[in-house]
This record gives sequence, C-alpha cells and structure tokens, in this order.
Amino acid sequence: MVKSVITGTGSYIPSIKKENDKFLTHRFLNADGTEIQNPNDIIIDKFKSITGIEERRYADTKLNASDIGYLAAQKAIEDAGIDPEELDYIILAHNFGDVKSAAIQSDILPSLATRVKYRLGIENPNCVAYDILFGCPGWVEGVIQAQAFIKSGIAEKVLVIGAETLSRVLDKHDRDSMIYSDGAGACIVEKANGDSEDSGILSHATQTFTKDEAYYLFFGNSYDKNEHPDVRYIKMHGRKIYEFALNNVPNAMKTALERSGIDIDEVKKVFIHQANEKMDEAIIKRFFRLYKKPIPEGIMPMSIHKLGNSSVATVPTLLDLVLKGNIKDQEVKKGDIIILASVGAGMNINAVVYRY
Amino acid sequence: MVKSVITGTGSYIPSIKKENDKFLTHRFLNADGTEIQNPNDIIIDKFKSITGIEERRYADTKLNASDIGYLAAQKAIEDAGIDPEELDYIILAHNFGDVKSAAIQSDILPSLATRVKYRLGIENPNCVAYDILFGCPGWVEGVIQAQAFIKSGIAEKVLVIGAETLSRVLDKHDRDSMIYSDGAGACIVEKANGDSEDSGILSHATQTFTKDEAYYLFFGNSYDKNEHPDVRYIKMHGRKIYEFALNNVPNAMKTALERSGIDIDEVKKVFIHQANEKMDEAIIKRFFRLYKKPIPEGIMPMSIHKLGNSSVATVPTLLDLVLKGNIKDQEVKKGDIIILASVGAGMNINAVVYRY
Repeated sequence: MVKSVITGTGSYIPSIKKENDKFLTHRFLNADGTEIQNPNDIIIDKFKSITGIEERRYADTKLNASDIGYLAAQKAIEDAGIDPEELDYIILAHNFGDVKSAAIQSDILPSLATRVKYRLGIENPNCVAYDILFGCPGWVEGVIQAQAFIKSGIAEKVLVIGAETLSRVLDKHDRDSMIYSDGAGACIVEKANGDSEDSGILSHATQTFTKDEAYYLFFGNSYDKNEHPDVRYIKMHGRKIYEFALNNVPNAMKTALERSGIDIDEVKKVFIHQANEKMDEAIIKRFFRLYKKPIPEGIMPMSIHKLGNSSVATVPTLLDLVLKGNIKDQEVKKGDIIILASVGAGMNINAVVYRY
Repeated sequence: MVKSVITGTGSYIPSIKKENDKFLTHRFLNADGTEIQNPNDIIIDKFKSITGIEERRYADTKLNASDIGYLAAQKAIEDAGIDPEELDYIILAHNFGDVKSAAIQSDILPSLATRVKYRLGIENPNCVAYDILFGCPGWVEGVIQAQAFIKSGIAEKVLVIGAETLSRVLDKHDRDSMIYSDGAGACIVEKANGDSEDSGILSHATQTFTKDEAYYLFFGNSYDKNEHPDVRYIKMHGRKIYEFALNNVPNAMKTALERSGIDIDEVKKVFIHQANEKMDEAIIKRFFRLYKKPIPEGIMPMSIHKLGNSSVATVPTLLDLVLKGNIKDQEVKKGDIIILASVGAGMNINAVVYRY
C-alpha cells in the first residue's frame, strides 16, 4: 500500500494577545437580547473553568486568513525541506474566507489556496490549488484528501493548510465570542519513499451528521437586536455540540483505530481539536472507556489555554508545537502512534491514525 | 483500473428570465467611475455579439445557491436511480456561498454540501459532505476528486454539485454584470461495475496559474465610486482572461486527451464552460489546430445564449440538457468520447476525457 507521510509542519501564532480580562467591559446579552444578570467577572470565571481558555490570539488587522495561512505554509515547506515548485496540490481549509478587519464580507474569490500559491511564488501550473469548507475538521480532512490523491496516483507532494480569523466574524455580545481566536497551521504530506519504512497515515474515519445537527453551528444575527438583521456572525448551540461530540467523536476515533489494526495500548498521543477543554477531556475519557482502559498520563497535549479555538488551525498548530518541542513535557518520537481528531460545523467529525 | 462512471445528471434552470433589453435602463460606468459614452443599446449589441448571451436566468429571491443545488441534486439522484443513503460523498462547488437576495454577506457556515445533505434527508453519517472553491471549474474538479476517492478505495458513489447565484454578487454599474447568471447542475459518479464495460473517466488534467493570473477574477469595488468601499462584487479583467484561456485551455485539453490514449478523431463532443461564445469558439479552433484538424460540425453544444454564465453550473447543466435531448441537434450516444473542460477564477483550468 502506498503510504502518505507528513514530512514537515508549520504554524503561525497571531501577534495580538487578548486576555480574558479584556472582556470585562463587554456587554454580554442573552440570545433573546436581554441583559445577562451576572457580572462579567463571574461570566468570565465560569467560561474559563469550562473551556480552559485564559487568553486567545487575534491576527494583526493588516493580515487576513490567507496571509497567516501563507506564513504557516512557508514554515511547513522549510521544515520539510522541499522545493515548493514540486508541490502537486495546495489544499486550504477555512470557513469564512478572507474577512478584512472591520468589514463584514467574506472574500473567497479567488480561493485562498490561490492566494497562498501566489505569495509562495510558485510558478508550476501543475500545482493545483483549491479550498475546502468542512467546518473545524477541514484541515484534518485536507490531510485525508491529500492521502486519497497520493493513493490514486495523481499527487506525490501536497501542502495542506488550515487558516481562520474568527475574530472577524464574532458577535461581541455573545459570551461564546470568548472562545474564538485566529490562527494558521500547515503540513506537507508526501508519498512515502523507501526511507520512511512504516511511517505514515494508517487509516482514517470521516462523518457528516446533518439530520438534527446541520445547523448546530451557523451564521446568525447578533444578540443585540438593534443590529441590522442582514449582518450575521458565527453562532453555535454550545450544549448540543457538547453532547453531540461526546456521543460521536470517541466512536469515530475507535473506527479509525480499528481500521488501522493498531492496539489501543500503542496510542501515544491524541491531537484533538481545541474547542473546549472540558469537552476534550470528556471525549478522551469516553474513548478510553470504550476499551475499558484508564487514560494514559499526558496523552492529550493542549494549547487551548493560551490560543483559544482557532477552528481549522488548532490541530496543525498543536501538532507543530509538540513536534518542535514547544509544549512542556510533550513529545512525539519516531514510531509513535498518534491520532488526529476533530469535530465542528457540518456537523463533521474525523480521525486519522498515524505512525510517526 | 477502477473506472468512474457518471450514472445520472440533473440541473435546475432558475425561473427569472432576464433578457438583454432589461439592461437598457442600467447606468453603466467605466472602471474609473466615469460615464460610458455609448448609449446602452450599442453596449448591449456589442456585448451580445461577443458573448452570444441574449438572456440569462436569476434564481427566485427565496432560493439561495444551496437550494438550487439541492433541486439539481434531487434530479441527478432520480436519474441515476440510486438510494441517496448509499452516497459516500457529496461534493458541492461554488464561489460565493449562499448570498441572500439583497444582502451582501456570503453564508458558508455550515457548508452548502451539508445543507443539501440535510434537505435530501440523508441520515447516513458516513456520507461525507464538503464544499470546494475552485472558480468556475469547481464542478469539473469535483468530478475529478470523486474519481480520486473511488480510485483510492474510499468511495463508490459520489454526488457532485455545482451551484451559484452570481446575480447576488454583481455590480450593476459594470457591463460585465450582463454575463453572469444563476444555475445549478449535478451528477452521480459511481465506481464502475461489470456492466459498464469501457465507460467512464479515462483521464484528466488540472492546472492553477497564479504568477500573473491569480487576480484576473477578484472581489472588488463597484465602478460607482459613491458606493461604500467595503462592499465588493465579482470583478474580472476580461481581456486578460480571454487571452489566458486561449493560450492555455487548448493545451490542457490536449494533455488530458494524450493521457487517455484516445485519438482526436474519436472526440464526439466538447462540453466547455459557457463563459463567452467567441472565447469558446476560439478555444475549440485552437484545440483542433493543435492536431491540424478542422472543427467537426456540432462538436460544441452551447447553452450560453439563453442561460448566460452561471459559473460552476454551466458544464453540468449543459451536459444534462444534451443527455436529456433538450438541445437541438445535439446528442451523446453510448461509447462516444466526450471532453468536459472549464476555466475560471484561480486561474484554474481543467479537462476530463470521458467515454460515455
């Protein structure tokens, strides 16, 4: 079987730090537009205890999603040591396109992948650049698509990017706005050569739930009823998403692991979408419970405390941070089995089992 | 080799007919905001003689891109005679998302593919739904991606949709606004079984040109300088696109044909993106000139006269119209070699060689 190997990673951490106390002066409203009775410090404390988020990053106003995607891509290319002209595909996952600071329109013409290819200066016209919209799991899905192209013989080297500026699409009157952040991560996926031995993607699972779940994350109006109804923001039914994720993500991870033929005891790390710390902990707990196993110490590296939820960017950023030794007491060694997993708008879920 | 076969097609022709004379009262401006000196009837005559467009279709204000995509998808599913619960993927190509009539924001959360899956009532969570952004060639690229998934063993039945409402993103002061229309087309791509013999996708070619071309189609301001600079529309450098297409589309078609091993004399039909009649005629002329052959009579079915340029929807709509006998003197017979080809924002080009 043709294996697909991640040969380089890169990420871009936006420069503007927004700590929780910056929200003390926000005017938070209920969904019906009424004032929330609790004072903001109580709201923020509760928010932090559930999500784990202490601060998040916003991109400089001069940078759009494609710009930070480019910055992450550049690092991944350098890390892989490849000539970008050799790339067969550039796949860029996002969910809102380039949204200029203080504007409300998404700019997705041309695709963000085209913009990154342009900025990388790649001249080879056979490097095909396209965007995928797949909710927060878009970057992981891009890796799965890269693998499909490699297996089917139409690609050997693929750049997969996740880039998002959620700070540009949030309703500041919604408490959930504290979750969202900006970020970008990328990797190079290559067809394995003789040297890579057993490394590479072993299996994956992907699902899209729409029957009841299609609009758990959606584009909706501000909680401030004075705002124009044609202006919409990222909105979510948080409790429903929480329950949905708990009920379905562990099973998808188990399906992927079964397909790989790997034993649960071999799994060394799970890189999971950084949406909410309590939710991620509950998912990991249920996953190991499916095997009647305790949760191994340090199995789940986390970046949410300082980086928030940057949608498609969380998994590649977290992977890059760990691989480069930038998360305390976390590392991945040659031969380690890791799982990449995500959940988000769609509602989409995916999981990849990978031998490093 | 595992073959991928188109087993059903469907299209949705929007209900609002907009004839050229409806533009007689428009106030057309130059890019610099100055008034165009020619009267509108002269502008419209010249427009028609180049593009071939007499009228175009706009979607009812109650319908968004995902709605008309759903209507086309429903027909493709019925035509293929499949149970939609058996679908492994839904790939939806667009470039602007759902843009509500009279609003300026693109709504792409959740993905339009999720919305179509929801409306089709598909409950199977293993039917993966995602969107691709790839300019006008997005639908053809979706077919190529479907084939990659089938070849790599991760899918057997794929629904590929192209849906666009360009009427919602055009600058009415720009003469190019007369080109754009709304539309949706879809097909089912299936892994070939024993019955299908030689039918199916034989080869493809895809390219993305960004060095000089990345912003030939872009999101830009109105020619009316009194409009707010944060409100943007579909804009193009028409002459540059024309030259680009002539220089590159014939070569991409030739590359795809060479990869198929099929002789040029066997090609029965070319279904090309309906962007501009003169451009399409010039492309076909250059294509056959590469083989020192005359252009065969009736090789290029056209729908642009009555339907305009509906971006991703033109090729699947045209294919559906011909297959269902809805274009005069045009038909495709079992065993016929056809080429699907497109060009658009990115700048992207693709071509698929297919044996019916």
